[in-house]
Amino acid sequence: MSTNPNDVNSAAAPFFWTEQGLRVLDQRLLPGQVAYEVFDSAAGVAEAIATMRVRGAPAIGIAAAFGVVLGARVRYRENPADWRAALEQDMKILAASRPTAVNLFWALERMGAALDDIQGDPYPPLLALAQQIHDDDLAANHRMGELGADLVQGSSGLLTHCNTGSLATGGYGTALGVVRSAYRRGVKNIYAGETRPWLQGARLTVWELNQDRIPATLIADSAAAWLMKSGAVQWVIVGADRIAANGDAANKIGTYSLAVLARQHGVRFMVVAPTSTVDWNTANGEAIEIEQRDPRELLPECYLAQDSVIKGWNPVFDVTPAHLIDAIVTERGVVLNPSVDAMRAIRG
Amino acid sequence: MSTNPNDVNSAAAPFFWTEQGLRVLDQRLLPGQVAYEVFDSAAGVAEAIATMRVRGAPAIGIAAAFGVVLGARVRYRENPADWRAALEQDMKILAASRPTAVNLFWALERMGAALDDIQGDPYPPLLALAQQIHDDDLAANHRMGELGADLVQGSSGLLTHCNTGSLATGGYGTALGVVRSAYRRGVKNIYAGETRPWLQGARLTVWELNQDRIPATLIADSAAAWLMKSGAVQWVIVGADRIAANGDAANKIGTYSLAVLARQHGVRFMVVAPTSTVDWNTANGEAIEIEQRDPRELLPECYLAQDSVIKGWNPVFDVTPAHLIDAIVTERGVVLNPSVDAMRAIRG
Repeated sequence: MSTNPNDVNSAAAPFFWTEQGLRVLDQRLLPGQVAYEVFDSAAGVAEAIATMRVRGAPAIGIAAAFGVVLGARVRYRENPADWRAALEQDMKILAASRPTAVNLFWALERMGAALDDIQGDPYPPLLALAQQIHDDDLAANHRMGELGADLVQGSSGLLTHCNTGSLATGGYGTALGVVRSAYRRGVKNIYAGETRPWLQGARLTVWELNQDRIPATLIADSAAAWLMKSGAVQWVIVGADRIAANGDAANKIGTYSLAVLARQHGVRFMVVAPTSTVDWNTANGEAIEIEQRDPRELLPECYLAQDSVIKGWNPVFDVTPAHLIDAIVTERGVVLNPSVDAMRAIRG
Repeated sequence: MSTNPNDVNSAAAPFFWTEQGLRVLDQRLLPGQVAYEVFDSAAGVAEAIATMRVRGAPAIGIAAAFGVVLGARVRYRENPADWRAALEQDMKILAASRPTAVNLFWALERMGAALDDIQGDPYPPLLALAQQIHDDDLAANHRMGELGADLVQGSSGLLTHCNTGSLATGGYGTALGVVRSAYRRGVKNIYAGETRPWLQGARLTVWELNQDRIPATLIADSAAAWLMKSGAVQWVIVGADRIAANGDAANKIGTYSLAVLARQHGVRFMVVAPTSTVDWNTANGEAIEIEQRDPRELLPECYLAQDSVIKGWNPVFDVTPAHLIDAIVTERGVVLNPSVDAMRAIRG
């Protein structure tokens, strides 16, 4: 077994950079079909993001960075004397592809800031920067993986929710990166909730674990409490979409349920996310607005008739209060028992 | 509004008796398709049960009673002098249709005990008895509905799980009967969990509420905690497949999760079931064996390949301990804060 975690790379990457362009895995077709498509322009990458071929906040940010590289290559070839205005339009298209993804704007800002110093062909330096953004994300994931694995040392079983793996990041994953590292260190029983209504757990998480030959067991989300009662898991490990300054964490619907159930069963609860997920301007979870998704994700067709009295309630996220979280693991270190004070340790 | 609860009959019945035979709704096709088929022999009714066109323990018992009626009619016509031996074979076929359904055996025993006193054509007295069994179940459901509605008086919202309605019983329902009665008395916000993996909530519960024009909101099972936190529901109301002598209750997977979450959110928890569901020979929930169902209900096809390292864990039921149950509602009355002592009040 390698002692260098970077030697362990997942077989499941959301995209690969090639000279032809960004080769993107269409996650909408998983797990039944593994299909790639190459996007060779900024507008193409924007389409790949908007259509959810690429999903997961870190993966979206990295893909957008490569979108800028492709835009610059095209615009410079079209007009080496004046390519900047056209690239700015490309970047606006990329920014509009998923308007709520914080990492998308962060990556575009970082690429945009580099433009000022560029003279001559922008393609080589922008490609180098996009690859750096990708490498940094991967390295952060490996770092979080090791920090999280330290915490779960000696556990026999872990439960995760949604998809936070290679497919959602630059590779390896956040919460699923911890699961990977813990598995390499001997934690053998990995459970994944199927994660209704989109089934990211069933469609993506156990798919990429299967690619990596990491044995895993899928459960209905509602079976998690009964699993905890059986003593099979000692930690629940999840990602986050936004973390407030006090450690309250917004994540996929069902996360809060798992946190309440974990506390009642003496199971510990870990949130894994890069520090870019922390929104220092949000004081606590109550300030986080919860997006409602189309109820049709839940409702069979027949309930959509005009005379139907059946509705769906379909919040995308819920908020887990900091007091139910045992550890927040970031690339800058671990916050145990998160609070406003404890969170300051990972503020840059 | 009628003051007689028996005036409120659901539009969604699992079957109707007709002179041609038992007209059975094929629940496997709901909610997309409403299709009936008439079964005019005992073997036909046994097939309707074995193939899950009819499901729900009370509904299975009543259907089996009508199966005996149909068997007796056929066998008496075939041989008025000696029909009993052939009918006994029919009853064995009915008994084998769903070997774990307690109500099935109870109904067959009751029909069998009546045979001894019959002289001449067995069809009229057996039909009267089957209709009595059906009527008794419906009356018990209405009684439980009113008792349960008394408890939730003043609530604004209720959450139920799985399907315990007209489709699972002789009509009206157990837990869903309480929901119906409570709705008539003014509790307006009805929520149903979709109930993975079979989606009985999405396919059956909200379908029959829609038939009755009772507005309801479907949620993902994992959204229940977030719903409770919002304050939208004051009671969780569920059925039971088996209740131990101390009040521990086995029910569809996810029920235990709801009970733990309810207690943590100050939401009350009610189990509704006829006393025939209480197994006085089972001391407590630990003695109840939990059936595991085919993991293929959870796993997409691609994980069934021989080299897959992905499994599913698919318990059908879980057990909710009595201390998490605020009330068990039966046709003989309500047991508050169930315990071995409190349960004695409903022992016959």
